[in-house]
Amino acid sequence: MALLIRGGTVVTAETTVRADVLCDGDKIIAVGPDLEAPAGADIIDAGGQYVMPGGIDPHTHMELPFMGTVASEDFYTGTAAGAAGGTTMIIDFVIPSPQQSLMEAYKTWRGWAEKAATDYSFHVAVTWWDDSVARDMGTLVQDHGVNSFKHFMAYKNAIMCEDEVLVNSFTRAWELGALCTVHAENGELVYHLQKKLIAQGITGPEGHPLSRPPEVEGEAANRAIRIAQVLGVPLYIVHVSCKEALEAISRARAEGQRVYGEVLAGHLVVDESVYRSTDFEFAAAHVMSPPFRSKEHQSALWRGLQSGNLQTTATDHCCFCAPQKAAGRNDFTKIPNGTGGVEDRMMVLWDQGVNTGRLTPNEFVKVTSANTAQIFNLYPRKGTVAVGADADIVVWDPKGTKTISAKTHHQNVDFNIFEGMTVTGIPSHTIAAGKLVYAKGELRTVRGAGRYVNRPAFPSYFEALKLVKDINTPKPVTRAAAAE
Amino acid sequence: MALLIRGGTVVTAETTVRADVLCDGDKIIAVGPDLEAPAGADIIDAGGQYVMPGGIDPHTHMELPFMGTVASEDFYTGTAAGAAGGTTMIIDFVIPSPQQSLMEAYKTWRGWAEKAATDYSFHVAVTWWDDSVARDMGTLVQDHGVNSFKHFMAYKNAIMCEDEVLVNSFTRAWELGALCTVHAENGELVYHLQKKLIAQGITGPEGHPLSRPPEVEGEAANRAIRIAQVLGVPLYIVHVSCKEALEAISRARAEGQRVYGEVLAGHLVVDESVYRSTDFEFAAAHVMSPPFRSKEHQSALWRGLQSGNLQTTATDHCCFCAPQKAAGRNDFTKIPNGTGGVEDRMMVLWDQGVNTGRLTPNEFVKVTSANTAQIFNLYPRKGTVAVGADADIVVWDPKGTKTISAKTHHQNVDFNIFEGMTVTGIPSHTIAAGKLVYAKGELRTVRGAGRYVNRPAFPSYFEALKLVKDINTPKPVTRAAAAE
Amino acid sequence: MALLIRGGTVVTAETTVRADVLCDGDKIIAVGPDLEAPAGADIIDAGGQYVMPGGIDPHTHMELPFMGTVASEDFYTGTAAGAAGGTTMIIDFVIPSPQQSLMEAYKTWRGWAEKAATDYSFHVAVTWWDDSVARDMGTLVQDHGVNSFKHFMAYKNAIMCEDEVLVNSFTRAWELGALCTVHAENGELVYHLQKKLIAQGITGPEGHPLSRPPEVEGEAANRAIRIAQVLGVPLYIVHVSCKEALEAISRARAEGQRVYGEVLAGHLVVDESVYRSTDFEFAAAHVMSPPFRSKEHQSALWRGLQSGNLQTTATDHCCFCAPQKAAGRNDFTKIPNGTGGVEDRMMVLWDQGVNTGRLTPNEFVKVTSANTAQIFNLYPRKGTVAVGADADIVVWDPKGTKTISAKTHHQNVDFNIFEGMTVTGIPSHTIAAGKLVYAKGELRTVRGAGRYVNRPAFPSYFEALKLVKDINTPKPVTRAAAAE
Amino acid sequence: MALLIRGGTVVTAETTVRADVLCDGDKIIAVGPDLEAPAGADIIDAGGQYVMPGGIDPHTHMELPFMGTVASEDFYTGTAAGAAGGTTMIIDFVIPSPQQSLMEAYKTWRGWAEKAATDYSFHVAVTWWDDSVARDMGTLVQDHGVNSFKHFMAYKNAIMCEDEVLVNSFTRAWELGALCTVHAENGELVYHLQKKLIAQGITGPEGHPLSRPPEVEGEAANRAIRIAQVLGVPLYIVHVSCKEALEAISRARAEGQRVYGEVLAGHLVVDESVYRSTDFEFAAAHVMSPPFRSKEHQSALWRGLQSGNLQTTATDHCCFCAPQKAAGRNDFTKIPNGTGGVEDRMMVLWDQGVNTGRLTPNEFVKVTSANTAQIFNLYPRKGTVAVGADADIVVWDPKGTKTISAKTHHQNVDFNIFEGMTVTGIPSHTIAAGKLVYAKGELRTVRGAGRYVNRPAFPSYFEALKLVKDINTPKPVTRAAAAE
Ligand SMILES: [Zn+2]
Ligand SMILES: [Zn+2]
Ligand SMILES: [Zn+2]
Ligand SMILES: [Zn+2]
Ligand SMILES: [Zn+2]
Ligand SMILES: [Zn+2]
Ligand SMILES: [Zn+2]
Ligand SMILES: [Zn+2]
Repeated sequence: MALLIRGGTVVTAETTVRADVLCDGDKIIAVGPDLEAPAGADIIDAGGQYVMPGGIDPHTHMELPFMGTVASEDFYTGTAAGAAGGTTMIIDFVIPSPQQSLMEAYKTWRGWAEKAATDYSFHVAVTWWDDSVARDMGTLVQDHGVNSFKHFMAYKNAIMCEDEVLVNSFTRAWELGALCTVHAENGELVYHLQKKLIAQGITGPEGHPLSRPPEVEGEAANRAIRIAQVLGVPLYIVHVSCKEALEAISRARAEGQRVYGEVLAGHLVVDESVYRSTDFEFAAAHVMSPPFRSKEHQSALWRGLQSGNLQTTATDHCCFCAPQKAAGRNDFTKIPNGTGGVEDRMMVLWDQGVNTGRLTPNEFVKVTSANTAQIFNLYPRKGTVAVGADADIVVWDPKGTKTISAKTHHQNVDFNIFEGMTVTGIPSHTIAAGKLVYAKGELRTVRGAGRYVNRPAFPSYFEALKLVKDINTPKPVTRAAAAE
Repeated sequence: MALLIRGGTVVTAETTVRADVLCDGDKIIAVGPDLEAPAGADIIDAGGQYVMPGGIDPHTHMELPFMGTVASEDFYTGTAAGAAGGTTMIIDFVIPSPQQSLMEAYKTWRGWAEKAATDYSFHVAVTWWDDSVARDMGTLVQDHGVNSFKHFMAYKNAIMCEDEVLVNSFTRAWELGALCTVHAENGELVYHLQKKLIAQGITGPEGHPLSRPPEVEGEAANRAIRIAQVLGVPLYIVHVSCKEALEAISRARAEGQRVYGEVLAGHLVVDESVYRSTDFEFAAAHVMSPPFRSKEHQSALWRGLQSGNLQTTATDHCCFCAPQKAAGRNDFTKIPNGTGGVEDRMMVLWDQGVNTGRLTPNEFVKVTSANTAQIFNLYPRKGTVAVGADADIVVWDPKGTKTISAKTHHQNVDFNIFEGMTVTGIPSHTIAAGKLVYAKGELRTVRGAGRYVNRPAFPSYFEALKLVKDINTPKPVTRAAAAE
Repeated sequence: MALLIRGGTVVTAETTVRADVLCDGDKIIAVGPDLEAPAGADIIDAGGQYVMPGGIDPHTHMELPFMGTVASEDFYTGTAAGAAGGTTMIIDFVIPSPQQSLMEAYKTWRGWAEKAATDYSFHVAVTWWDDSVARDMGTLVQDHGVNSFKHFMAYKNAIMCEDEVLVNSFTRAWELGALCTVHAENGELVYHLQKKLIAQGITGPEGHPLSRPPEVEGEAANRAIRIAQVLGVPLYIVHVSCKEALEAISRARAEGQRVYGEVLAGHLVVDESVYRSTDFEFAAAHVMSPPFRSKEHQSALWRGLQSGNLQTTATDHCCFCAPQKAAGRNDFTKIPNGTGGVEDRMMVLWDQGVNTGRLTPNEFVKVTSANTAQIFNLYPRKGTVAVGADADIVVWDPKGTKTISAKTHHQNVDFNIFEGMTVTGIPSHTIAAGKLVYAKGELRTVRGAGRYVNRPAFPSYFEALKLVKDINTPKPVTRAAAAE
Repeated sequence: MALLIRGGTVVTAETTVRADVLCDGDKIIAVGPDLEAPAGADIIDAGGQYVMPGGIDPHTHMELPFMGTVASEDFYTGTAAGAAGGTTMIIDFVIPSPQQSLMEAYKTWRGWAEKAATDYSFHVAVTWWDDSVARDMGTLVQDHGVNSFKHFMAYKNAIMCEDEVLVNSFTRAWELGALCTVHAENGELVYHLQKKLIAQGITGPEGHPLSRPPEVEGEAANRAIRIAQVLGVPLYIVHVSCKEALEAISRARAEGQRVYGEVLAGHLVVDESVYRSTDFEFAAAHVMSPPFRSKEHQSALWRGLQSGNLQTTATDHCCFCAPQKAAGRNDFTKIPNGTGGVEDRMMVLWDQGVNTGRLTPNEFVKVTSANTAQIFNLYPRKGTVAVGADADIVVWDPKGTKTISAKTHHQNVDFNIFEGMTVTGIPSHTIAAGKLVYAKGELRTVRGAGRYVNRPAFPSYFEALKLVKDINTPKPVTRAAAAE
């Protein structure tokens, strides 16, 4: 059934124009002034509002089994909460255990995700290496629409990759036309600091940021970037939280390397003082990696978004309730790592980004959907409001206000890191795949309505990198044989 | 009459899709697969080719009176040559003499430009200051579609602006919603070095780069950026030629400042060795400011384009023939400054940018038209291939080759700085305002067919900067009055 | 009469050794273990203490006529206060009015300084330009032991130098073997901001830092550095107060340029919040230029000292009492600029530098005397404890403590910017020219005992720069004459 | 017997003064004008010459067993060759095999070194880890005068340290007051590139630099620096060869970290083009790691020395003759890595550093001896010309010239990487431990005359770092126990 969004201002990454938007089925079929409503079409009045691409959150962990428990938010509740916040697609992570088959893990996650309310896709983590991993990577890219692989440089004795695995996996992904991503923290240093802090009697959540200082992240980001540079491959760094990592990315980009950086809404506005709260539950609820940082880092991250050195925003949405967090009451290293935000991201970004003049509305679209769609080769199916694109749309009320709270949010977790923040600029309606899934506070999502989205291999920057590589192919020197 | 471009691949800043493009009048009216040709439509076969927005050259000086002579290329020949190279719009410069009324100069240039073959617009230079200048700036923005003002930081005792003029003009332009641009060279140092070199007996063209070393440009770029930062206004730096200036821009952008940088095709591929040629005519023909630089700077400039720290490409097309250049035979400071390239820019950029993997085709569009259109508030009228946009289009043959030469170019000048360069990737057809103006080597431009393009004030980034300024408005401290 | 300092640990820029120090007349005549005391020698017990070179403060303004008043501290009280803090030499500034003869001003200052208690020298400011200035510079260097000239880039309509004067003066100083120094703030921007702030109703001292933001200093520092680079001359930047200026210096040094930076004790520990005090007298007492900055800048300055990118520490000691400061009660631009500290510098540096591990004791000596002596060509006469050096020595009690206060200081001013700061590490004895001038709280200075110190031209780095210049001398290209 | 050096100009890191120098036994006993020669003293006429501290080469590998062969230069020939070039002390490396006892290896090297002609000391490499290694480190520092440990980040499957070993060893060394040093190259990437190049048919020496590009070094340097930063320990990076590593060091230093960098004479003047020679022997003779780099890196390294971001110069003297190098004729990975230079370093540095104006003579002393002595806690015993210092002295003839050649050098190797370079500025006499060991071309060294030099632990910067660490000790947050 058709749906007409009338009277709004369409904002994409490039333009801001008064236009109506007509959707039919799951697609946008017209964008222009004064569109005629087809018979029976639903009509949304967008007067005084912005009509933008639905948000894409490229970093979530719904129902993740982690640190001996399982994230409380599942694919349905998580995508529904996203919809309530104007986000219409997530890219979640398949994380095989070391020695587990990638295909097996992939299938498990695909099964879990069938209940999703909006579209989704998967990055697949490479947590170990042998020939079967290389083979499965091929299958995933060629037959299952996976075009990105994730690598953890932290979590020693668990899913951490040594440089050898990075080199092997980056090399293989390049052949397949897939983008490599990394969680950048030096796991050896984290491990050392955790042991040392516990030995020093620092057992509470305040130990968490002390065990993962910014230089630990900066080191790993730089290392991954150098490895990618030597191999001539693109790289995407998830959840950049500090200036050390940002500077590594900015340097590489300034030298012409194709490196991308993602920043979490939480890292932009929450600071490290939370870990010194005397309320364990409050402090523990903020435990995620990399940890929240000082305000100096927050400023740097905003500047990273402004300058284009960081391209995407995400949440690393990974929810654990207080009873789960309590597992680390006497040892911060046992607190399950993770915080939520899939519902809040767009509002936080608008309020702190657009209302402050840090970002224009067009730049807001870039960092909440368009850039992600381009980097992960979903554009222009996702990430824009244009004829032929998926009808994933948010109608945004720039004057609407709301106070974020765990009491009222749709996320299945008992805490909200943005608790009490009053934002101006909120979604009034969310359309996913052409259906109205959220309207003025009312959630209308349908369990299982979301679809798995195939992402094609070889995004456009691979061709450019291939030319660079060809031009730089080394040539042997011809020498006379040694005299015998 | 309608014109259908059939069978090509449409490349814009964001997307690459197989699609036909239908133009009617001066607009694009349809973009999509398998478009039906209206009756009587002209049809261009774009099979195996790219269909891209026509180039915009934001920096030309047609028929400029300068250094005692007049540039040989006029608005007709210049825009026609542009068309032959796929460029369909120029932004030229109105340059009043000190004490001359801006409006008077503007009208003079408007008169000269009426012969143009393709669309054009004007930056207006502020070369002096009094109340009438401020007033004329207002008139130009509000009544004449001018949204950018130019400032020369070099050319002491002629059109150079002291800091005081920069401060006044930047402040006034901000009120009007107009973007300030600067030619960044420290004129005092240039003047000192010129005198010193002549005194040392360095009178030939080799003195030209010695009198304008990179640090002279880096200084001025940084100064203009700091002034803009203090005033809270955006800034555009023309013809960035060296890493010193690029670094100033990159630093500012990394700190969240809205600064834009333009690079000339010539600076990307021609190096400073030309000035030491023993052939005076050859050396003098390369005299332009800033001068060509060493290869190290060229690499830096390419990386600037790749990283997005530089956004636009131009030519500073300003042609003087050998007899004109001869005025400086015994004194390099008297050689009229300027080189051509409006016809060559897109080919040079494609050959050295896209074929080498430095830029994707989408990035090529960004740096040859889309970014310029966005910065100067012409987008999406110009800079994209989309319904409603002006039908300024180039059909690009990525396999076509050509050897650039003054003997065969359409530019009205006896020299070509790219002489002998064989490029792969050339325009097969150029459409301007819906008319075919160039087809496979044949020029079909019409004298006077070009239109003056009004550029609206207050591009989107002004609103963001306004919010920043409001938030940072200083508040006085309330203090008790001193005891009497 | 001989004086033996017995039992201490001698700390110089390079070494830390247990040794006695024997002075005779105004010189050190022996340094070594277990020195025999000559008959009748005074003996100072330095057990458990450090014996270091007396501090050199390279930036003071005793009895300066400025902004319609005269600094309250004169050459006697100021040098005596310095002695009480372990400082045994100052370099003050001769500041001619525009159009005033340099020689005339120099003689005036020499007259004022005759009352000094410890040694002193003068930088001479170049505040305008004509041939007589160039001539006087020569006289000062060749006949009067002046080897440094100062330039103000701020104070428009008063003593500000335009680039033209900088170029002329830097060029002339190079010929003479004298070092140029600059007060780096863009005077045009300061002037603009002052007017704007007053117009906005910001008339109190809080307007002072707003009118001189860090970017204004960063701009000027970079400009002076670039001018020096183009001219191939060394440069010294006084009172570096912000990271923008520090970064300009660090960049230049990393590129091999000989640029030096000075930091004031005040900028290292006092922050900008003082200007928002509701107590006018308190706020006004802190008005000096560049203003105190945020803590972020303080950290940067400390790192600058640690890395060696900043070499010297000073005070810009320039005292005005509350009644003088009151001239600007209704207009911050009229508050006489200046704060004190000549007595406090060494203690503040030790307490906040050495006790925190930022600096080793050897590094403390470098930044409080040795580097200054080397840069201004006084070494090893000043700046070290060695045989043959001037007997300017401080015996330092690293365990001694003291709370700094205007109530107890020896400075002739009613305010102390370090008020209430308790320092650990204080001088127990100060020896100047072989005489004990301060002992455990008791001042023994003698009015007029200080001597004018000639500083020879051509410090060692001039020779190196000359070689660089020779190697880079441009060569003309020989070309055939044009055919007639 | 006494030895008087008469009529020269004594140059130390800080001063340049006309003075005679009197040595007795192994010490300098007087420095001053017009010293009286004791009866029977040898007298060296230093008229028109500089008298400087003998060079210290902190990086040599005499008679090293490596890659299946043994370096041709032994401790006697090597130190003698050093003496011929003005170098009077080396610090060589004890390199235990993995699993070999550090003490055992240390004793072996001590035995080999007994034949040395001049003084020497040892860094000891940590190439593996267990409790015995930690214990032996303690023994070496406390009982054997070792105050530095070396770590190889390259040479996978041989002596490469993983991060875990670095963390353990850096932590242990800190407790002991010893400085850690690293050979910074990412061994995993080198290994990958070597395999790939061989597979591509690049088997000649041109493969060597391709397998160890600058980014591989930059990565490892940054990683070691970050590890040191997190642990709060000082770090010394050997043979910095590229701007990537230099930038990592410069950044760290600018942020206040105590990181030191060493540069080899070879990296300053030899460029990578040597590896593409069609003469295998010539190309292979240059194989050392890190490889020689492009001229852009050379410029950067010089700037690093000038700015003080690099502090020391060395040679990595490790000689293999052509028959040894031939082992890698068909596989560059089998060419023994190493080049010579212990004899040439000071002359190359003077000629290319001082004669070009890059360094003053005082700076020359800093980078050839004084800084090394300070960093490795040998100062002022070594590294200066002062009363009480070891009589290790070079009399330097700034006008003397010489053409470097393997035909005439004293080094026991058949190749010289500086072959054919004519230098101006050469040693006329070298005095080691008070004995004349080289005089105007004639070598007078005595086998076994060199002494092992104990280096005390805890150089002065340890105390400063300890204060920093104490101040930053984390404090636990006190929280109420959870309600039961
Ligand atoms: Zn993560
Ligand atoms: Zn995650
Ligand atoms: Zn220009
Ligand atoms: Zn121009
Ligand atoms: Zn000043
Ligand atoms: Zn001052
Ligand atoms: Zn090595
Ligand atoms: Zn080595």
